[in-house]
Amino acid sequence: MRILIVNVNTTESMTHAIGMQARKVAAPGTEIVALTPRFGAESVEGNFESYLAAVGVMDAVMSYRQPFDAVIQAGYGEHGREGLQELLDVPVVDITEAAATAAMFLGHKYSVVTTLDRAVPLIEDRLKLAGLDERCASVRASGMAVLELETQPERAVEAIVRQAGLAVSEDHAEVICLGCGGMAELDAKIRELTGVPVVDGVAAAVTIAESLVRLGLSTSKVRTYAPPEPSA
Amino acid sequence: MRILIVNVNTTESMTHAIGMQARKVAAPGTEIVALTPRFGAESVEGNFESYLAAVGVMDAVMSYRQPFDAVIQAGYGEHGREGLQELLDVPVVDITEAAATAAMFLGHKYSVVTTLDRAVPLIEDRLKLAGLDERCASVRASGMAVLELETQPERAVEAIVRQAGLAVSEDHAEVICLGCGGMAELDAKIRELTGVPVVDGVAAAVTIAESLVRLGLSTSKVRTYAPPEPSA
Amino acid sequence: MRILIVNVNTTESMTHAIGMQARKVAAPGTEIVALTPRFGAESVEGNFESYLAAVGVMDAVMSYRQPFDAVIQAGYGEHGREGLQELLDVPVVDITEAAATAAMFLGHKYSVVTTLDRAVPLIEDRLKLAGLDERCASVRASGMAVLELETQPERAVEAIVRQAGLAVSEDHAEVICLGCGGMAELDAKIRELTGVPVVDGVAAAVTIAESLVRLGLSTSKVRTYAPPEPSA
Amino acid sequence: MRILIVNVNTTESMTHAIGMQARKVAAPGTEIVALTPRFGAESVEGNFESYLAAVGVMDAVMSYRQPFDAVIQAGYGEHGREGLQELLDVPVVDITEAAATAAMFLGHKYSVVTTLDRAVPLIEDRLKLAGLDERCASVRASGMAVLELETQPERAVEAIVRQAGLAVSEDHAEVICLGCGGMAELDAKIRELTGVPVVDGVAAAVTIAESLVRLGLSTSKVRTYAPPEPSA
Amino acid sequence: MRILIVNVNTTESMTHAIGMQARKVAAPGTEIVALTPRFGAESVEGNFESYLAAVGVMDAVMSYRQPFDAVIQAGYGEHGREGLQELLDVPVVDITEAAATAAMFLGHKYSVVTTLDRAVPLIEDRLKLAGLDERCASVRASGMAVLELETQPERAVEAIVRQAGLAVSEDHAEVICLGCGGMAELDAKIRELTGVPVVDGVAAAVTIAESLVRLGLSTSKVRTYAPPEPSA
Amino acid sequence: MRILIVNVNTTESMTHAIGMQARKVAAPGTEIVALTPRFGAESVEGNFESYLAAVGVMDAVMSYRQPFDAVIQAGYGEHGREGLQELLDVPVVDITEAAATAAMFLGHKYSVVTTLDRAVPLIEDRLKLAGLDERCASVRASGMAVLELETQPERAVEAIVRQAGLAVSEDHAEVICLGCGGMAELDAKIRELTGVPVVDGVAAAVTIAESLVRLGLSTSKVRTYAPPEPSA
Repeated sequence: MRILIVNVNTTESMTHAIGMQARKVAAPGTEIVALTPRFGAESVEGNFESYLAAVGVMDAVMSYRQPFDAVIQAGYGEHGREGLQELLDVPVVDITEAAATAAMFLGHKYSVVTTLDRAVPLIEDRLKLAGLDERCASVRASGMAVLELETQPERAVEAIVRQAGLAVSEDHAEVICLGCGGMAELDAKIRELTGVPVVDGVAAAVTIAESLVRLGLSTSKVRTYAPPEPSA
Repeated sequence: MRILIVNVNTTESMTHAIGMQARKVAAPGTEIVALTPRFGAESVEGNFESYLAAVGVMDAVMSYRQPFDAVIQAGYGEHGREGLQELLDVPVVDITEAAATAAMFLGHKYSVVTTLDRAVPLIEDRLKLAGLDERCASVRASGMAVLELETQPERAVEAIVRQAGLAVSEDHAEVICLGCGGMAELDAKIRELTGVPVVDGVAAAVTIAESLVRLGLSTSKVRTYAPPEPSA
Repeated sequence: MRILIVNVNTTESMTHAIGMQARKVAAPGTEIVALTPRFGAESVEGNFESYLAAVGVMDAVMSYRQPFDAVIQAGYGEHGREGLQELLDVPVVDITEAAATAAMFLGHKYSVVTTLDRAVPLIEDRLKLAGLDERCASVRASGMAVLELETQPERAVEAIVRQAGLAVSEDHAEVICLGCGGMAELDAKIRELTGVPVVDGVAAAVTIAESLVRLGLSTSKVRTYAPPEPSA
Repeated sequence: MRILIVNVNTTESMTHAIGMQARKVAAPGTEIVALTPRFGAESVEGNFESYLAAVGVMDAVMSYRQPFDAVIQAGYGEHGREGLQELLDVPVVDITEAAATAAMFLGHKYSVVTTLDRAVPLIEDRLKLAGLDERCASVRASGMAVLELETQPERAVEAIVRQAGLAVSEDHAEVICLGCGGMAELDAKIRELTGVPVVDGVAAAVTIAESLVRLGLSTSKVRTYAPPEPSA
Repeated sequence: MRILIVNVNTTESMTHAIGMQARKVAAPGTEIVALTPRFGAESVEGNFESYLAAVGVMDAVMSYRQPFDAVIQAGYGEHGREGLQELLDVPVVDITEAAATAAMFLGHKYSVVTTLDRAVPLIEDRLKLAGLDERCASVRASGMAVLELETQPERAVEAIVRQAGLAVSEDHAEVICLGCGGMAELDAKIRELTGVPVVDGVAAAVTIAESLVRLGLSTSKVRTYAPPEPSA
Repeated sequence: MRILIVNVNTTESMTHAIGMQARKVAAPGTEIVALTPRFGAESVEGNFESYLAAVGVMDAVMSYRQPFDAVIQAGYGEHGREGLQELLDVPVVDITEAAATAAMFLGHKYSVVTTLDRAVPLIEDRLKLAGLDERCASVRASGMAVLELETQPERAVEAIVRQAGLAVSEDHAEVICLGCGGMAELDAKIRELTGVPVVDGVAAAVTIAESLVRLGLSTSKVRTYAPPEPSA
């Protein structure tokens, strides 16, 4: 089985990190192909960049010339998943939704800890549209920009742990979702420090994509995600 | 005052029609400039095209070289408004939200009548995110594609009136919103035939944009719609 | 065009102030007529007074002997708007809803800052019934009574700014609605001090009423706001 | 214990019928005093009349010169209950809420069957504000005006039973609330014909009012229902 | 009239206390029979114990050999009420719902103060399923275990009063529900100290059960609570 | 990896069928152990039986003497999952939630088709508590009892297909969840006949349980699902 995992920004080192994280949890026999969009922002921190990323991700997937069995969109709170679902016959999994879904099997309420404060409303909106917000205790920002997660990993862990701790003590979260593709390698550390399960969206998405493929399930084509008309 | 009104598809005749409709209701002294995206779909009937339109609309607005006071995004249920809000200092009005807002001043519940069935979930999602769905009785499809509104206006009126009638009798709507930029000239006819107020999104958006400008109000820049960082 | 704007209390100086504020934003050619109820409370701070005001406002409007094109009910969180909609053929705009509607075009979430704590649940209830509460971050009280806004304007500004600041920092509001007819002249000051858009309900209501009139739209008469039966 | 039960319209024969219905279920030792407002509509079928009734009911209660232990507002879907709660130290029970509350102890979902279609949104709004709408399957209109319940009781029963039947079969209601003070004597007949429990709001309100008095509970005075200020 | 009130744990002294509390408010002519389950936990503090209690309570009621007119399940936030409703022809009242219902007649918002923090989500879930959560300001834990209410009554009162005070000042509750069967005797003290109405679930449930019996109302048998099939 | 899958009724042939269905989708190296409760109902069709099943399932799992890595509760709309989560350190997956979760990755809305009408409210309640109801278009009953699925498979397929078709055409479902453990083998047939993805809860639950185990994730123990106290 081949799964495409598409970064939402154009930073190759993040694509690499996301691919590595995905491979760690992939089943034997699953090939992970990590793609970088040909255009877009170095890091996606707001709506303009997120809309550009939506098109960049669709372009990257449609330009890929080999067969594949599922696609993962590896951006937290980003636009675009519905477009991929229209264009493809294979399952599409967004890491924001994958993480929330996994978290809801683990505790009564979950929180998301993300990068900058301005990303919070985007994530809240995606969870709301996905109907996964009812058990979301909070979306909290660590104040660290996406690229700082790579350049200042220690400060990032500290800031994320602080917000995760507040999510548990103040917001009654019982599970933490790491709200950024770039946080992929921090989960073990944070789990240890907070004492609650920590869900990484990339890892969750890989197992969900594999599961849907194994079950022979793919996107319904009867209404919302019917293929675009040829005239378009 | 100059207001840009941006079509979401690349069909010039629709841009023209939208501009005309806007000028009909604009106040004296308001200049309406109707823009067509440089790329995108001839008509936007689904998510892929809608995401492309989001970027096409942003491109069209950012490429416009004269000063302007407000922007209207003239697509029903389309993506992209939040991106414009980040990029601009002037107010941005989406016609889906403008129509719903006006309708809510006129009756207890409103319905939207749109083109194809596949557009329904997109409109429902936009209204939900905008927090304007609570008093939405239904979103109904006439089964007419966007471009058929121009080529078969009589059948279009008939199909829309039928759904509007069902919205009133079955769903208890008291106001009808015309859920497509291309329906702009049909409102008087439909109002006469259904007996309830009919709101055209383009017209509503023009008066709302004018109002915000006159009140000296524009998009808040403190969080969600802060300008993109230069590094992006 | 003539717009009636009706104060909800019997204090003439407040009617005068409301009329002045309305005239500031009215379009050329719009005549603003400010009315005071013949009975009711000097200031409306609770439900009993608010119900009395509902009837007082209807009485004031029905007693007005000239033609008019729209009515604005200038009380924040007050009862009665639905009654006016039944009795009249012209549009009726409540300032609570007008302010919320304008705010929702400007930011992801908005807050209302009102007078006394006891007014908070009334405003929350009106926003809920109007289906405009989903994006309301909070309704906060400044602790200043309606009449103190006139007698102690400096303390009022200070108290309102403090609550507006907390609404932004604690509740993540991106826009502030001034939740009292009597706050009408304070908006510029508060806007400057908080850095976010500040919406005055009276001003917003004037432009909305004008817009509905220009669009030829009025209250739907098919169900909820059908005229009272003659037998009644 | 003395309980005032206040009709919302000025039709004495309905006040009499409401009083009789209340006495049937009152505990030994409970005195029921049925009051008619001094002003208002012969029957309350819309918002204007309902707001007038709100003030008429408050006037009737405040004009009553004997001591009393609780007040019941005997109108379905009417305004005004919050005003009474401010003015009084004794418990106030609205029959709309009393019926819904009782119904929720009896089945998973309940429906309300009321008089005219135009009363439906008023009842829906009251249930929503009271937070009792979540388990409301539907509010259905029999098409019979309030006064026709007295003049054409057979047709009324037939029309109500038909809607009650549809509420059970189509809307999955398991309990029916009779949505009008004037339906008070029909409940046994309708229960027999539909096979589900039928709740009369007047009867439910009497037992709830008695219960609150016996438990020594009355309206909280800390915020929403604090007494009006003397200056008002 | 005979009402069975069933403790959810196996501690006889708590059954005794619950019975005494019920008798204090029961009407003349109402016989209260307090039952203890034959199996289960000494105190119910979580889901496992609560599910066991659900079956224990059903067993206790079905083993009772005398006729009875209503059943009260005297556990706060516990499972099982729906099972009793299937098995019985008489009304079943849960104290969690009884308290919330009474509180909603007394103030705009109510809070529940319960024992341990882990009971909070159970109570929230029960209120949500019952559709009684909309006006619930908060569910707060005193940190006192069920059995400590008996062994350390002074500390219990202090801890409960502290949380009740915070519910009023921070969460805007206007009424407090005592969220545990074992708190039954503390209500007067707490009412005095907090200044808001305090509802004891046992007391509220007794008057509601009596009311339903007097009104001749019982559980609807058409769908959710139809009796189990004989084959089962 | 060993996964326990627990039937909720005592019918061994259904346990066998559930085990077979689970093994079909299990990954190589996953051992499926299917358990039957020692007590309970032959088929679970209502709340009484469901509460009994909750305890029966907990008993079956706690009596199992070998190590295991995850538990699946194979009943649709049944009580008890939260109890297992308290008692165990391994992940617990309910098939109702597993099916809904998978469906939400495949289409905009999903419907559940279950056995008897009386099961509908139980399923609705479980989805609501799980926060998975927002995108649920409907829960529909085929009218076939659990045991009839085995004895009359052809009629069952026909009845389920009819309801699935209505869910798609009337309720706008884009995915169907088979709402009963006993429907496990019918999914391919129904998928072919309806043209939309069909999710079997058992199959979905197996892949989700495997995923959680592979990701090293288990139930959070900080609040709701903390282990029962020893004193209990």
